[in-house]
Amino acid sequence: MSSVADTTNLPQAFAAGSPRVLVAGATGFAGALAAHLLWRHPRFELVGITGRSEVGRRLDDLYPRYRVPLQIEQLDLDRLGIERDTGGRLDAAIVAYPHAAAAPAVGELRELGARVIDLSADFRLASIETYEQWYGPHLRPDLLDEAAYGLTELHRAQIADAAIVANPGCYPTAAVLGLAPLARAGVIADVVIDAKQGISGAGRTFDDTTHLSMAGENILPYKVACHRHTPEIEEQLGLLGAGMPVQFQAHLVPLDQGELASCYVTTTRTVAPAELAELYADAYAREPFVEVVAEPPGTRDVQETNFCRVFAAADGHTGKVVVLSAIDNLWKGTSSQAVQNLNLMFGLPETEGLT
Amino acid sequence: MSSVADTTNLPQAFAAGSPRVLVAGATGFAGALAAHLLWRHPRFELVGITGRSEVGRRLDDLYPRYRVPLQIEQLDLDRLGIERDTGGRLDAAIVAYPHAAAAPAVGELRELGARVIDLSADFRLASIETYEQWYGPHLRPDLLDEAAYGLTELHRAQIADAAIVANPGCYPTAAVLGLAPLARAGVIADVVIDAKQGISGAGRTFDDTTHLSMAGENILPYKVACHRHTPEIEEQLGLLGAGMPVQFQAHLVPLDQGELASCYVTTTRTVAPAELAELYADAYAREPFVEVVAEPPGTRDVQETNFCRVFAAADGHTGKVVVLSAIDNLWKGTSSQAVQNLNLMFGLPETEGLT
Amino acid sequence: MSSVADTTNLPQAFAAGSPRVLVAGATGFAGALAAHLLWRHPRFELVGITGRSEVGRRLDDLYPRYRVPLQIEQLDLDRLGIERDTGGRLDAAIVAYPHAAAAPAVGELRELGARVIDLSADFRLASIETYEQWYGPHLRPDLLDEAAYGLTELHRAQIADAAIVANPGCYPTAAVLGLAPLARAGVIADVVIDAKQGISGAGRTFDDTTHLSMAGENILPYKVACHRHTPEIEEQLGLLGAGMPVQFQAHLVPLDQGELASCYVTTTRTVAPAELAELYADAYAREPFVEVVAEPPGTRDVQETNFCRVFAAADGHTGKVVVLSAIDNLWKGTSSQAVQNLNLMFGLPETEGLT
Amino acid sequence: MSSVADTTNLPQAFAAGSPRVLVAGATGFAGALAAHLLWRHPRFELVGITGRSEVGRRLDDLYPRYRVPLQIEQLDLDRLGIERDTGGRLDAAIVAYPHAAAAPAVGELRELGARVIDLSADFRLASIETYEQWYGPHLRPDLLDEAAYGLTELHRAQIADAAIVANPGCYPTAAVLGLAPLARAGVIADVVIDAKQGISGAGRTFDDTTHLSMAGENILPYKVACHRHTPEIEEQLGLLGAGMPVQFQAHLVPLDQGELASCYVTTTRTVAPAELAELYADAYAREPFVEVVAEPPGTRDVQETNFCRVFAAADGHTGKVVVLSAIDNLWKGTSSQAVQNLNLMFGLPETEGLT
Repeated sequence: MSSVADTTNLPQAFAAGSPRVLVAGATGFAGALAAHLLWRHPRFELVGITGRSEVGRRLDDLYPRYRVPLQIEQLDLDRLGIERDTGGRLDAAIVAYPHAAAAPAVGELRELGARVIDLSADFRLASIETYEQWYGPHLRPDLLDEAAYGLTELHRAQIADAAIVANPGCYPTAAVLGLAPLARAGVIADVVIDAKQGISGAGRTFDDTTHLSMAGENILPYKVACHRHTPEIEEQLGLLGAGMPVQFQAHLVPLDQGELASCYVTTTRTVAPAELAELYADAYAREPFVEVVAEPPGTRDVQETNFCRVFAAADGHTGKVVVLSAIDNLWKGTSSQAVQNLNLMFGLPETEGLT
Repeated sequence: MSSVADTTNLPQAFAAGSPRVLVAGATGFAGALAAHLLWRHPRFELVGITGRSEVGRRLDDLYPRYRVPLQIEQLDLDRLGIERDTGGRLDAAIVAYPHAAAAPAVGELRELGARVIDLSADFRLASIETYEQWYGPHLRPDLLDEAAYGLTELHRAQIADAAIVANPGCYPTAAVLGLAPLARAGVIADVVIDAKQGISGAGRTFDDTTHLSMAGENILPYKVACHRHTPEIEEQLGLLGAGMPVQFQAHLVPLDQGELASCYVTTTRTVAPAELAELYADAYAREPFVEVVAEPPGTRDVQETNFCRVFAAADGHTGKVVVLSAIDNLWKGTSSQAVQNLNLMFGLPETEGLT
Repeated sequence: MSSVADTTNLPQAFAAGSPRVLVAGATGFAGALAAHLLWRHPRFELVGITGRSEVGRRLDDLYPRYRVPLQIEQLDLDRLGIERDTGGRLDAAIVAYPHAAAAPAVGELRELGARVIDLSADFRLASIETYEQWYGPHLRPDLLDEAAYGLTELHRAQIADAAIVANPGCYPTAAVLGLAPLARAGVIADVVIDAKQGISGAGRTFDDTTHLSMAGENILPYKVACHRHTPEIEEQLGLLGAGMPVQFQAHLVPLDQGELASCYVTTTRTVAPAELAELYADAYAREPFVEVVAEPPGTRDVQETNFCRVFAAADGHTGKVVVLSAIDNLWKGTSSQAVQNLNLMFGLPETEGLT
Repeated sequence: MSSVADTTNLPQAFAAGSPRVLVAGATGFAGALAAHLLWRHPRFELVGITGRSEVGRRLDDLYPRYRVPLQIEQLDLDRLGIERDTGGRLDAAIVAYPHAAAAPAVGELRELGARVIDLSADFRLASIETYEQWYGPHLRPDLLDEAAYGLTELHRAQIADAAIVANPGCYPTAAVLGLAPLARAGVIADVVIDAKQGISGAGRTFDDTTHLSMAGENILPYKVACHRHTPEIEEQLGLLGAGMPVQFQAHLVPLDQGELASCYVTTTRTVAPAELAELYADAYAREPFVEVVAEPPGTRDVQETNFCRVFAAADGHTGKVVVLSAIDNLWKGTSSQAVQNLNLMFGLPETEGLT
């Protein structure tokens, strides 16, 4: 029996009613799931969903399983402005656009007064140089100062107050959560991250990599030595004191949702099993969504949840530390982490609507 | 149009007719595939298939797709002995038993005069100490001297003359073929091998790891820091001049047949892209079954073939070399490599019956 | 935003607190899901889970995704009796045993005063003769009078008051919901039901039909002209006025959860499209869990929900009516329908804990 | 040991060398497989592959597994004409175009003197009215007289001499082979055909029905009462004496290659099990590619083969006959049946290159 929701002790923000939230870009996998999670959320009001295609179609026609009975609209900033002026304020928006398309939309939503969670890469990198090297020109660099990096467990204080939250990439989520305790302890001399992901990670794009007759019965490595999540992981590890080039390699495997980051750490000194266990226990003992486990985690263990399961072992034979970090790439890797952040931004328990 | 088989210029061994071959342990995936490959082979005669279960059942009932219309028998050494004495010699056998069970059977078949390809681990490790540390007591250490390690591309001369061929593990096949050019060049300072494999790698065993409702939609790492293929890879790399502890990690992913070894090599010195390309081209230019490719190989590219596809790239950012090596775990990783070896042992072109 | 649970206006049964429920047989797919649904249910208290194997193991170790942190115990009727006598009453139990094993357990739980939902076939057939013809001797025929057939939409009144609810088979659930409007209208002259189901339908059994390497890439018809769900479907259609032999054929297809019953009805008279639409609209307009849809339903549309999606079309070419009925075999086909029934038995809205 | 190909006794057609064959439309699944089968065929020479896209790309880059090292060209009739005039004749072509696009290409290839196997629907229906009702205007009705329907087992004599062979649809192949013995015996009063197929049946098209994240974990019925294979099945059954409207329903299930037609026959009179067995044994005893089996066939049993497995049972309970017919939709359902026909057209054993 789950605890029954209690209406007492709601945060101040709720004095005027439930925060009103928009999902922009709800036709893709990430936006649709965000809409689903907000629709069933006990404390937020999903006031609209927009799309750059499929306008006029209902989301529960496009994604029946998500059961969101709203029509996909075009993003109409004028109308939203008028609504705001007449009391129909927009408190927050989740933007699920591709990089480069996201930044301008984020800017416009900011002008309407909404706090924004951006699922794209546009505000993830603190270094504009790094961003432009990997993604091309940044269209709203002026907004970078307003953005917090949305890996909840590592940046709570900034997220709580941020105007813009740059929701992390799915690979950085799994990898950085897996490596953070070692990074903070200053023991990472070198690291290889081998990541595997289900086909939903390729999004609702249609090509040889997503067609079941080609993606099925296949294991497909891609983007060797050039995956855009590499600088994001490096920047975050750097903030934790482990700045260094990271070997990152991604693979597609034939399932829908699930992601495993297998991390192989060469350490600066011997890390005994007991110390290793303590590092991870200390780091995550009070985290509602990170579970340190004693057996290698399968991604199925966290499927359709906001949980990250982390396993760490010292290999006496090689001296390395092996860290396995499993998430659902669409949930903790994307949309449910966005809701976790939204909870945090509006003073709710992080777990609200997610368990 | 494939070339039509030609009966002229057959090796000496064929003077008395086609070599007669037995498959012992034909009920598992590896033995059944070996039987299939021999049944359709133009130069060998499959004289019998035996099993430790399913005796009396036809193989094309158990594995319809393989279309081998023979009955599974018990291994009857007395009968085989009588047949030999009356002219029905047994030239060769493929033994597909679990480790420990294999060695005694190999010994008995040797006594009948057959040359044996053993698919188990029993004769793979030259060091008896290493074997017993990982597998327990060795039941026929006296036969170790007769055995050659069956990674065809690396041990041709020994295999051609061997009485016993220890067919390699599937992971060592992919990993060692991927790393051999670097090992020989003496540039491996350290290596991490992250391997992924389809469920057929778990064999015809029935448990939570093979049930579609649990193995499907899952990515499952297993045997952290303790996989038995580790010493096998280390011993082979050692023979090539790269003796060192190897970080090896295996994962099950939801497909049937396919295996990818992703290898991350820290080099002893900078290896320029041109040198890297030359190392791999030189190593495999004349190999009929190893293809050096310019794009990351998917396992589907080699499904149900004896090919190994290898891709190598120097990562300028980290200084490491990334090697991706794809095989079909049941084919080149097991049974078709056994046939490649059998071809070699009997003086046939290695490709006979395999293309 | 989902409505926040409200504690006012709870049924009388809740005066003494939330009903206390046991799941017996929680190690299989059905029992484990039932435990999961009750654990997260806002109005029932899951007081224990038992198993005939895996005793002592935690359910969240066996099924991590379900996140039920309880230990599997042996069913100990003595202890339950003592608890009852000291105030720790057992209000209800869900029994997930195989047929024949279920009936005695149901009887013992009845003696403790619990109302029981039986997921087996033991109490589904009103005719003891039919039961024994298909399943063998019935071990507790004396209890048949206490049992209601648990297809919620068809037997609400009896279920609400029943001491024992015989939860329907998954195929009868999909088929009978699909055919009921036609059966009631008296227009079925003949019917063919071709049903397809994911591998979870085979349960947590381990053999060639569930091994991913054999069940994957396969479409497997089974039990031709002898599936035990046939008499169950016939009995239910008979109650609706359409008593006749039914052609029922089941198939396994390579997914986890999902079931589609494709029904081909020869009608006694022409049924015009408008009449057909009206029949289905009338039948299900007020049903919270049956959706009449305008496009052929995929099973993915109802995955992990208690919904049944029904589509009906008149084929002008053949004169037949085609009905397609999609459910999740483990949810509406088994465990979530059990919870729907439990809600009904204890005076709660049927949707409680299921949306 | 398979029999070694023998060069004696080749048909007259081979006096001038191996027949030279072109595959037009080799970028789709069907054309690519046809190219693969011809490339490895011992008696035909694959002289070129053309495509309407991907021109200049090698087929073994697009479909590595098929290992055809030819470049995709544009179909250049002028060049083919010149080659013909200078002795480089084109003996045959397999055309893998969509319907309507196929007919003109078939016509042009006929003008070059090639015999053509058309994989589209353009020449399958003898009735031009029926064709135009289902597919729209026919662009080369003048050629219909030259065409034979390519279900090898039923139309051998016509196929052997035909200028154009209309290769059957995959569903008609499975269904008509399954039903032919009953149709000929005149016992079919009514029939329902429920067919299931892997995603390759949707071809190399990219949309929600082929994306692994939507096609996976789904069972999807489509085209209710309007599938274009219906008239094809009806016409063929009519030729066998069983002209009647047929209830045909198709479903997509999450695998790559495989197709099962489950046929439910209401008979005109009682057909006893012994008579049924005799009907099927007589029909297919001498067929190299149709196997009458005693257990329900899984599609995996015939995967990547030209075999059709047929099972028939009389259901004493309903009086109906259940026929289950399994093929690989891309092989016997399309491309290997084309090669079987090509063998027949050029006087070769039908099994040449297919076993």
